[in-house]
Amino acid sequence: MVEIRKPIPVEKAIREVMNYASKGIVEEVPIENSHQRRLAQQVVATNNVPSFHKSPYDGFALRSIDTNEASLESPIEFEVVEHIGAGQVPTKKLHNNQATRIMTGAQIPEGADCVAMFEICKTYKKDDKTYVSLKRKMEMGQNIIKEGSEVVMGEVLIEKGTMITPGVIASLATFGYSSVKVAREPVIGIIATGTELLDVDEELRPGKIRNSNAYMISSQIERAGGTPKYLGKLADELESSYETIKEALEEVDHLVTTGGVSVGDFDLMPAIYEKLGAEVLFNKIAMRPGSVTTVAVLGNQLLFGLSGNPSACYVGGELFLRPIIQASQFSTTPYLKRIKATLADEFPKPNPFTRFVRCYVVYKDGKVYTKVAGIDKSNVVTSLAYSDCLMVLPGGTRGFKIGDEVEILLLNNYEGQQDFN
Amino acid sequence: MVEIRKPIPVEKAIREVMNYASKGIVEEVPIENSHQRRLAQQVVATNNVPSFHKSPYDGFALRSIDTNEASLESPIEFEVVEHIGAGQVPTKKLHNNQATRIMTGAQIPEGADCVAMFEICKTYKKDDKTYVSLKRKMEMGQNIIKEGSEVVMGEVLIEKGTMITPGVIASLATFGYSSVKVAREPVIGIIATGTELLDVDEELRPGKIRNSNAYMISSQIERAGGTPKYLGKLADELESSYETIKEALEEVDHLVTTGGVSVGDFDLMPAIYEKLGAEVLFNKIAMRPGSVTTVAVLGNQLLFGLSGNPSACYVGGELFLRPIIQASQFSTTPYLKRIKATLADEFPKPNPFTRFVRCYVVYKDGKVYTKVAGIDKSNVVTSLAYSDCLMVLPGGTRGFKIGDEVEILLLNNYEGQQDFN
Repeated sequence: MVEIRKPIPVEKAIREVMNYASKGIVEEVPIENSHQRRLAQQVVATNNVPSFHKSPYDGFALRSIDTNEASLESPIEFEVVEHIGAGQVPTKKLHNNQATRIMTGAQIPEGADCVAMFEICKTYKKDDKTYVSLKRKMEMGQNIIKEGSEVVMGEVLIEKGTMITPGVIASLATFGYSSVKVAREPVIGIIATGTELLDVDEELRPGKIRNSNAYMISSQIERAGGTPKYLGKLADELESSYETIKEALEEVDHLVTTGGVSVGDFDLMPAIYEKLGAEVLFNKIAMRPGSVTTVAVLGNQLLFGLSGNPSACYVGGELFLRPIIQASQFSTTPYLKRIKATLADEFPKPNPFTRFVRCYVVYKDGKVYTKVAGIDKSNVVTSLAYSDCLMVLPGGTRGFKIGDEVEILLLNNYEGQQDFN
Repeated sequence: MVEIRKPIPVEKAIREVMNYASKGIVEEVPIENSHQRRLAQQVVATNNVPSFHKSPYDGFALRSIDTNEASLESPIEFEVVEHIGAGQVPTKKLHNNQATRIMTGAQIPEGADCVAMFEICKTYKKDDKTYVSLKRKMEMGQNIIKEGSEVVMGEVLIEKGTMITPGVIASLATFGYSSVKVAREPVIGIIATGTELLDVDEELRPGKIRNSNAYMISSQIERAGGTPKYLGKLADELESSYETIKEALEEVDHLVTTGGVSVGDFDLMPAIYEKLGAEVLFNKIAMRPGSVTTVAVLGNQLLFGLSGNPSACYVGGELFLRPIIQASQFSTTPYLKRIKATLADEFPKPNPFTRFVRCYVVYKDGKVYTKVAGIDKSNVVTSLAYSDCLMVLPGGTRGFKIGDEVEILLLNNYEGQQDFN
């Protein structure tokens, strides 16, 4: 007799899995290795920016009070007492009618309270000294970037859990974070099950297919921020499969298996969960594809039993595994970013269950459209190659027309969102 | 006297640089290391998919002709002669009123031309043999996935230059690409110039700032698909800087320097280009920030002279360096993806020159909006951390209002586009 399973809504299934999201583990890496990791600490300003009054231009620093009488007819003359570039420290305090030649980014000398740009100054030599003359009045503070005007020391600049992008690295370097606390990447084991599976380098034989799911989910794990660990493939044989999975669990944080979760005669995962003593959270979800996606818990480890069908495996990985990986990296927005889009293709199939359709985003005239990947044929594997989002079609709908508003989940967006819905 | 430089339009500057884009170099990596690399080959179907007639369900394979008389009142009886799971090869040819118990994904036995799902079949034992009875007529081909119905052998599935995502890896594995030809990542050297620069692990001292540009551009190079090689920082001293840069060019494909390209008294890059015998393509661009961005050519190497100002450095890297890196990876769409968006903030500054404003994307109700990062303060470094696009404001405009249509360049989109505009 075929086992009858009761499907649960996908939102409920995700909540149940996320109840077991583990706290992140912190590790420290040199700043140059921090690209695309997630921050396990806040970035705090360790100094004012700028940390000194600074010139935004090449020009002459001087006292604005000395320019009060300056005009086209009667330029004021200043003696140039020093010449400093960025990184050089001014040594001379300015007194009346003295100026310092100063480069962009350099520190304003004591006494000066403004900078006159080169373009409005005239320099000349006289008695072996350098002078500059100015024909207009300057305001106090003019052309000076004040200490702390950009960032005040102690300010929290970037939150924990943020993905480290080039812009984040700029802040880290500016504030002296030569090593950075980042979230450890969880190690996710992968085991493919199915007697029909060949290794990727094997010749195709009758009745067999190559194992594509393990490599695909491995890449999904990398995209989500985890470290995949491929532990091989298993034939549909209970005892040896059980042993391999039991050993695998000692090497990884969580384990993904592909295949073997359905109710077919050779689907062994249910028996293996039982033998392991793992608690099955659910084994049937009211969604397509991936309705047989099963998640079980053993201690603090999650066992993701994904379908052997490529698109179901893909969807299961994105919906259940991705947020677990991201939450363990301190992300407060671990779920796929969901946005509204206009459907640019017919999708006439009725949806008794929530359906996740492989799609891609098209931007046009400021609007977001989505097109169904590979709608012209049932080519599952190739259409995955061109998908960058999943369209969510709610259960109980009768199909969708061109121009309908739909929701899509962005697969390559690392920002995410706080909740699944 | 300050040198007067003639600014060229940004589009022209980019075209001049891209004239020197070099062809990609191919290297081969194992499939498991191919995540996020770019294909240096087409992916071609090396077999039909499926490669045999296959069952989409658990059920019984049989001859549809035998079901012609089946009805609720008179079910037809079939002898079950074999039981095969996925990956097992059927050994028995079916004759009239014989059936094979078959699992999802398994090969259809010879003689059979349809599959009756479990749910509509009744199995029973009789005289030690297994039988199944069926109460409805089946069509020829019903519930059979035909060989080659998804992909036909020889079909080109994915083009050269495509980024390898999880979906692309699924295709690679399916078709036996255990090693994959990918584009070699160009090595981009980085040298920061400026006497004012401290190392990131140094204590702040008067007049100094920490070197943030080198780490930032390093991360930008990684995002674009290159391998950054940080070669240190230089004080503003001509002879030693020249020697270091000359040596650096022997270790890298192209070289980025930050700082020293302006017309200040300590800006040494122009003199170094001359001493190297490099041809300066331009040293002034009609854009903000980054107007002093300079690109020079020496043999087949490009020298990117980016500004020392963080946001100018960032913009210069995205506009000039990124497409060079991507083109050398066989991407036919090396330019930043440009889309239309609705401005969600005031940006009242007039733009005598094309301006690239640090922004981020907001999706709302199917439309793309853009907000200015850090508009409330002049905090350049921190606003970079929150930017995911650059808004392009054309020169000769008087500022923009909330609700205006603008164009944005997406920084984290790897798809890109064929032309800059």
